[in-house]
Amino acid sequence: MAKRSGKTGPAKPKPQPRVSAALGDDSEITALELPLAPLPPDMAAYFDKCREKLGFVPNVLKAYAFDPAKLAAFVAMYNDLMLAPSGLSKLEREMIAVVVSSQNRCYYCLAAHGAAVRQLAGDPVLGELMAMNYRAARLSERERAMLDFAVKLTAEPWRVEEEDRAALRRSGFSDRDIWDIAAVAGFFNMSNRVASATDMRPNSVYHGQGR
Amino acid sequence: MAKRSGKTGPAKPKPQPRVSAALGDDSEITALELPLAPLPPDMAAYFDKCREKLGFVPNVLKAYAFDPAKLAAFVAMYNDLMLAPSGLSKLEREMIAVVVSSQNRCYYCLAAHGAAVRQLAGDPVLGELMAMNYRAARLSERERAMLDFAVKLTAEPWRVEEEDRAALRRSGFSDRDIWDIAAVAGFFNMSNRVASATDMRPNSVYHGQGR
Amino acid sequence: MAKRSGKTGPAKPKPQPRVSAALGDDSEITALELPLAPLPPDMAAYFDKCREKLGFVPNVLKAYAFDPAKLAAFVAMYNDLMLAPSGLSKLEREMIAVVVSSQNRCYYCLAAHGAAVRQLAGDPVLGELMAMNYRAARLSERERAMLDFAVKLTAEPWRVEEEDRAALRRSGFSDRDIWDIAAVAGFFNMSNRVASATDMRPNSVYHGQGR
Amino acid sequence: MAKRSGKTGPAKPKPQPRVSAALGDDSEITALELPLAPLPPDMAAYFDKCREKLGFVPNVLKAYAFDPAKLAAFVAMYNDLMLAPSGLSKLEREMIAVVVSSQNRCYYCLAAHGAAVRQLAGDPVLGELMAMNYRAARLSERERAMLDFAVKLTAEPWRVEEEDRAALRRSGFSDRDIWDIAAVAGFFNMSNRVASATDMRPNSVYHGQGR
Amino acid sequence: MAKRSGKTGPAKPKPQPRVSAALGDDSEITALELPLAPLPPDMAAYFDKCREKLGFVPNVLKAYAFDPAKLAAFVAMYNDLMLAPSGLSKLEREMIAVVVSSQNRCYYCLAAHGAAVRQLAGDPVLGELMAMNYRAARLSERERAMLDFAVKLTAEPWRVEEEDRAALRRSGFSDRDIWDIAAVAGFFNMSNRVASATDMRPNSVYHGQGR
Amino acid sequence: MAKRSGKTGPAKPKPQPRVSAALGDDSEITALELPLAPLPPDMAAYFDKCREKLGFVPNVLKAYAFDPAKLAAFVAMYNDLMLAPSGLSKLEREMIAVVVSSQNRCYYCLAAHGAAVRQLAGDPVLGELMAMNYRAARLSERERAMLDFAVKLTAEPWRVEEEDRAALRRSGFSDRDIWDIAAVAGFFNMSNRVASATDMRPNSVYHGQGR
Repeated sequence: MAKRSGKTGPAKPKPQPRVSAALGDDSEITALELPLAPLPPDMAAYFDKCREKLGFVPNVLKAYAFDPAKLAAFVAMYNDLMLAPSGLSKLEREMIAVVVSSQNRCYYCLAAHGAAVRQLAGDPVLGELMAMNYRAARLSERERAMLDFAVKLTAEPWRVEEEDRAALRRSGFSDRDIWDIAAVAGFFNMSNRVASATDMRPNSVYHGQGR
Repeated sequence: MAKRSGKTGPAKPKPQPRVSAALGDDSEITALELPLAPLPPDMAAYFDKCREKLGFVPNVLKAYAFDPAKLAAFVAMYNDLMLAPSGLSKLEREMIAVVVSSQNRCYYCLAAHGAAVRQLAGDPVLGELMAMNYRAARLSERERAMLDFAVKLTAEPWRVEEEDRAALRRSGFSDRDIWDIAAVAGFFNMSNRVASATDMRPNSVYHGQGR
Repeated sequence: MAKRSGKTGPAKPKPQPRVSAALGDDSEITALELPLAPLPPDMAAYFDKCREKLGFVPNVLKAYAFDPAKLAAFVAMYNDLMLAPSGLSKLEREMIAVVVSSQNRCYYCLAAHGAAVRQLAGDPVLGELMAMNYRAARLSERERAMLDFAVKLTAEPWRVEEEDRAALRRSGFSDRDIWDIAAVAGFFNMSNRVASATDMRPNSVYHGQGR
Repeated sequence: MAKRSGKTGPAKPKPQPRVSAALGDDSEITALELPLAPLPPDMAAYFDKCREKLGFVPNVLKAYAFDPAKLAAFVAMYNDLMLAPSGLSKLEREMIAVVVSSQNRCYYCLAAHGAAVRQLAGDPVLGELMAMNYRAARLSERERAMLDFAVKLTAEPWRVEEEDRAALRRSGFSDRDIWDIAAVAGFFNMSNRVASATDMRPNSVYHGQGR
Repeated sequence: MAKRSGKTGPAKPKPQPRVSAALGDDSEITALELPLAPLPPDMAAYFDKCREKLGFVPNVLKAYAFDPAKLAAFVAMYNDLMLAPSGLSKLEREMIAVVVSSQNRCYYCLAAHGAAVRQLAGDPVLGELMAMNYRAARLSERERAMLDFAVKLTAEPWRVEEEDRAALRRSGFSDRDIWDIAAVAGFFNMSNRVASATDMRPNSVYHGQGR
Repeated sequence: MAKRSGKTGPAKPKPQPRVSAALGDDSEITALELPLAPLPPDMAAYFDKCREKLGFVPNVLKAYAFDPAKLAAFVAMYNDLMLAPSGLSKLEREMIAVVVSSQNRCYYCLAAHGAAVRQLAGDPVLGELMAMNYRAARLSERERAMLDFAVKLTAEPWRVEEEDRAALRRSGFSDRDIWDIAAVAGFFNMSNRVASATDMRPNSVYHGQGR
């Protein structure tokens, strides 16, 4: 198709050796220089548990570790939202995380929670679709309603009204479920911004997980 | 100026008795029906402390009270961000809260934190200006830089880059201060959305505080 | 909650004496230097009437006073729109004024017409809600339809079509009422921009009115 | 290029007789039914003057004619802004009118004031470019600065600040000129919305003027 | 109306001799300096055919002529889309071209294809309305549905879904027609951007065609 | 972290067997029913070449195959833009493709060209970052300038002006390179829209390539 050998055009550029687009992601976790505080025992134990269960400590935890009170508050809220009992499955909560992070184009959260969706769903393409455009995914009516609410709440929260809650109820969500959708979507609207403000970098291991 | 008595125009409508635009704000705190759980002792004590110091329990706490773990996580994060030692004054943190909430047009947070700015500043108009358009306020260069960052982070977090952090450093903020600006702005991007998603109503007492 | 006394963190900043965020609002009315012309008799009488009825001359009138023809045209149009007989009550017209000014984030108009809403309604929170997010107010169906139209006309006038007029008619508005809604919303889209372009400052007395 | 006569494709549709896209523009001036009031003598004289000088009465005047006070206020403000002495030439004021109306995609104002630009400039393409994208026109630095200000004031008035006024001053505009730019841009932000809200139709004669 | 002869206002500016807003449009076709290649015989013949049928070679062809392969690919795609048999009439395809170009505010395409609409429709105002605001035109239901789809696809392609295709089918379009609407709208989203990126100038003859 | 076994909360939902989010991607290529035409010999040969070199025929080619003229025009333009000699490397062209497709949130193009970036760069994370937020990638100054131009041209083509071209020249791009950046960015603004309009599905093999 490209047989133009005789043409006097621009020379084909040599392939350039590139540094990785993610250079330093595992060593320079944020763009801020924040002196590390020693971890208190409960957080040190939590980091050990992460290493044991995940094989690594998520960079977001290291980023918060400069201040034990902030780290503890973040961990408590995160674990309650994403892991505690809820009418939303863990996969559903991770789907909200990725769709909100896609709306906000957050590198850290898309990498980390995209991996979570791939792993929890056992469907790598679901993770891709949550990051690319959830509207193109083959979703249940319930999932679609949940994500539509999360995206509207992210993009124009001032326009969310009773009709939006009614739509969720029509899709089978309880009032408690609505709280959880809002709380997870809200949480990632926070985390996306802390990550973007500080150029937080995801552990490189996430990129290959669940493929 | 309006002497048109002889004109055959539409009849002047009778003043209608209106219900308050904030009817029920103190009794129906959100649009969700969430069965209340009994408060655990530490949270009960915290509510008592609120009543003692503020004269009332902020509705956001009552809204979270259906689940003690969620309430505790919210309180811990909120108090750390807004009250713990920081390079940002409490007033500065409240100014960020209101400016972010203005961007997101959040009734609850504008009412509650607008009151806080009025009270902490002893300048009622400062609270008004944070809610209306912070660009019209007479601010120090430091305050303006801080709020510009918070608004950009709210409106298009994906465009925040090193140059934005450099601008804060040029205005005298440390890397730790940048974290705190990001964390407070992020937190209200969360709270605004939880409030909007649930139609959370502010205690009516806020409206008159600090006038 | 913030017991961290032993922690070596940033020192709590001293409360700074701040200048008012509205410094000079009553003396430097706009950012433009426009030599004042002597007021012609009818306008001088109008200013006197303002002082008598309101206790002050609204700064917008002083801003226009550099040119008697412009002042007279502004006053004539303003008084016709806001005070002449109409199917819309004066409060309804002021509600439109504030909601449009909120969309355009205009300090002058939010301060001056927010005060008018508070006073005409005898409901201070109604003024706050018009400025913060009218969608969160407890409104009649008629009020809501009127404000939805005004906001759409402000934000994307090119999308207003017959269906939007039909919605107003279904809410009980006559064609003459529709004109008046459009004319008031249009007028504040003008005034907001003249005020923003010139950094027009509201009389400080507005901030406390109707609280 | 399109010789595909043998191909079994969709049949070429017959040219359809179409009604004009502007059907009724000269007879049904707005979508509102507003009973006409008799014109008071001064306005009747003004309409006569229009017929004499322009050959027709602009539809916007007929649209306002249902209420003599509104008509008079509109005419007074319009004529002051567009025709009275100013540091801006009449062409410059019309250029602002068209560029603002393009931002707001207002059929009436683009048709009427596009014609004015074509006629005043003696350059038909200038009118086209103001309506299409003023950034593509070959303009003086002064014209460009003036239109950039008008467009920013139209699209995001809340972001207009001292630096924007300073840019106009650097381009040679006086403070009085800045007022006039703001006032003209503001006026068309009003008129565009009244026209869009009422589906106001331009006299069909405009379309051919100045070609 | 503007009798202010005695007023000491700004002097009325002298009419300035202006250069045309479209100066050089016929000679400097883009802002890029691209050395011209000799036209291969088939393209030379095509240019001759343009001169014969249109009276001139459209500048877009001259702009692409620096590279015969790019020119040939552009011509092949353009002629297939706009001239080959389709369920859409040629006028309909040109209407899509102008409406998309209006959304993207593309000078070149609005000038060239606005002329085409005027000529094909024999209705000059239809061309104006497609460029100004197609929603204000008197259109058939079919035309309106087609243009609504094209505009949504231009402004937020990620939100186009099955319901949008269903709406076209309800308006009588076949699946093949939907492809053609999408392909024409897509093509002008490409051409608009190539033209804007290179400051491509339309042949001045377009401006007067079909008036 | 989530030890709440005694709590009477919502039951943990059973993991649901889900269908793949990409169900049918390899069999139902678009949402349109377009009867297939027999491939002419040159296109049949091209499809064979794809199978030989890639192992499969990209779905976009199958989608266009209902009309040989459209298929041939698409292939000619695509191959010229992406494969012919250019001052832009093939990787750079694919980076533009992905960044534009991310702006437009196009599933097909993100999947297909994300794979191309991963393979050409030998850096899987580069592909991820182009899809997530190119501003977070570690890029050369040249790459960043190229992508900033492509994104501005995608999001607001009407604002691209000489200064944008000058910025590219300062980064070392020739005028011919600028054309190529514009042409590739333009092409994917077309393809994204054809894909979104038709719900075009990427071959599932893309998702795993280059990981």
